[in-house]
Amino acid sequence: MRLYLQDVTLRDGMHAIRHRYTTAQVSDIAAALDRAGVAAVEISHGDGLAGGSVNYGPGACLDTEWIEAAADAMSSAVLTTLLLPGIGTIADLRRAHALGVRSVRVATHCTEADIAAQHIGVARELGMDVAGFLMMSHMAPPADLARQAKLMESYGAHCVYVTDSGGRLTMDGMRDRVRAYRDVLNPGTEIGVHAHHNLGLGVANSVVAVENGANRVDASLAGMGAGAGNCPLEAFVAVADLMGWEHGCDLFALMDAADDLVRPLQNRPVRVDRETLALGYAGVYSSFLRHAEDAAARYGLDTRAVLVEAGRRRMVGGQEDMIVDIALDLSSRMG
Amino acid sequence: MRLYLQDVTLRDGMHAIRHRYTTAQVSDIAAALDRAGVAAVEISHGDGLAGGSVNYGPGACLDTEWIEAAADAMSSAVLTTLLLPGIGTIADLRRAHALGVRSVRVATHCTEADIAAQHIGVARELGMDVAGFLMMSHMAPPADLARQAKLMESYGAHCVYVTDSGGRLTMDGMRDRVRAYRDVLNPGTEIGVHAHHNLGLGVANSVVAVENGANRVDASLAGMGAGAGNCPLEAFVAVADLMGWEHGCDLFALMDAADDLVRPLQNRPVRVDRETLALGYAGVYSSFLRHAEDAAARYGLDTRAVLVEAGRRRMVGGQEDMIVDIALDLSSRMG
Repeated sequence: MRLYLQDVTLRDGMHAIRHRYTTAQVSDIAAALDRAGVAAVEISHGDGLAGGSVNYGPGACLDTEWIEAAADAMSSAVLTTLLLPGIGTIADLRRAHALGVRSVRVATHCTEADIAAQHIGVARELGMDVAGFLMMSHMAPPADLARQAKLMESYGAHCVYVTDSGGRLTMDGMRDRVRAYRDVLNPGTEIGVHAHHNLGLGVANSVVAVENGANRVDASLAGMGAGAGNCPLEAFVAVADLMGWEHGCDLFALMDAADDLVRPLQNRPVRVDRETLALGYAGVYSSFLRHAEDAAARYGLDTRAVLVEAGRRRMVGGQEDMIVDIALDLSSRMG
Repeated sequence: MRLYLQDVTLRDGMHAIRHRYTTAQVSDIAAALDRAGVAAVEISHGDGLAGGSVNYGPGACLDTEWIEAAADAMSSAVLTTLLLPGIGTIADLRRAHALGVRSVRVATHCTEADIAAQHIGVARELGMDVAGFLMMSHMAPPADLARQAKLMESYGAHCVYVTDSGGRLTMDGMRDRVRAYRDVLNPGTEIGVHAHHNLGLGVANSVVAVENGANRVDASLAGMGAGAGNCPLEAFVAVADLMGWEHGCDLFALMDAADDLVRPLQNRPVRVDRETLALGYAGVYSSFLRHAEDAAARYGLDTRAVLVEAGRRRMVGGQEDMIVDIALDLSSRMG
């Protein structure tokens, strides 16, 4: 078994610091990841190419600036990016490709794979490695989710992910979804896992996914990512070693990169705490965290109340502006 | 399924702050746990009754002072303690019982259950709830460990734990050990799980243990405990809710106690980082962490090197004094 470890520190990790990486930080982190042996390094605004906006939060740099900084720092790992149809465009994808990006994940809400068809097709025409990324996977039952995965495959995706954006899946939920993928996808189509650590299960869910047929695993240094973070890369690699799985990474180098380069950047600790645990418990998009904390502070609310209400309304990525609406509603009810 | 959740914040959590709780802190934390509905609250020096010593580190208070503070603050939860034969004595146990302690865990290295016979017997004579606690459970294969558990049962233990003191078990290792217990213990004997989060698997291993027959689960607020901490109580309770398991606890009250009362006391963050991950990876007793960090700092070493060597030597609890020997050896090799 040879795992394909994709680092998301420079993409999902953007959420943890409101998309504020400098190009110097990107360069240092990408170089460390490349040296430590990860298969792929993902980079873009947290919400994908062209994600910088009033709704999602502006980036400190343009995607092209971040991509160039990463590309220059790497020699072995695949440079990859994220694209959400409706936010990023075909033109953004072509621009990224021209800068050396050779792999892309096309992301949709877990019930909307059909909006990825065109973007996956263009990526294939460009000769890129392409994966489908079904966000908020906990919101669709395994068989329904697998049908969406099959659509992604039919558009040309080489791999489809179970993407637990809400960090809401327990291990049985992850297992059932990966098995449902395995049941319907062609044998040559890879399966990936993207976990969030909101319930403290990020490493465990990634392990369970691999045990049931996934070979691509998302993880980030010191868990740097939305909510309680992603599966922490160095912890996953330690476990993979103990399980006897090949991954090509240097564990101690990853530990050093995590603690020396990444953890010091976390101006809000990336950990399982009152607020991030509430994300997983309520099944809310992890990148809502800092938006919800801001809104709760502004209106004198418990962040958990905002998150629980967002879960009740079954809100999904793209509805960040509604978080303030929730805060206003809760605030007026208290008044 | 009704779980029995035992909080270890005031016992294993002692290690995280070098056994420095004040009686006021004990009182606040015990009261919050009692109100939030945990089944039992464990209290003593981190290394059990009478653990305060040069080897283990002195406590800020006497065990009796801590016990009295906790007893006065609680009205519902069972007050329980830890006893390591050879450190604590029968006299210590009787003294704790006189102060209201009604449950005890008698702990031995995973291959030395036989030294617990007398202490378990006395606890039963006192009418106490008694559990056997087989530390460093990863060092014994499942069938061997289960034979030790059977000995604990034969001495009178109502429950026997898989105690992953090194935070070294992956989920398959935990599953196999709990199943081995179930195979040999009487149906009326309970099974417990005590996890450490060094590999980021504390919650997952506790879930797997329950799925395979354990009903007692150790956990602590904000994971407060040796190494990367124990299974974080509030995260486990959130997952237990999502799994549909009864536990009697108020999740939001636990979250508040974790973030308001306990996390602020962590003068060394309790988390999965370079050093604590190395504990799990090397299979080292979690309470060696702060001893090893001290020794590494004194001799200018990487803490990981000290821990990896401790793992290679298969050191177990009670050999804390040998950590300085390792540091001296490594230091002289470098010179």
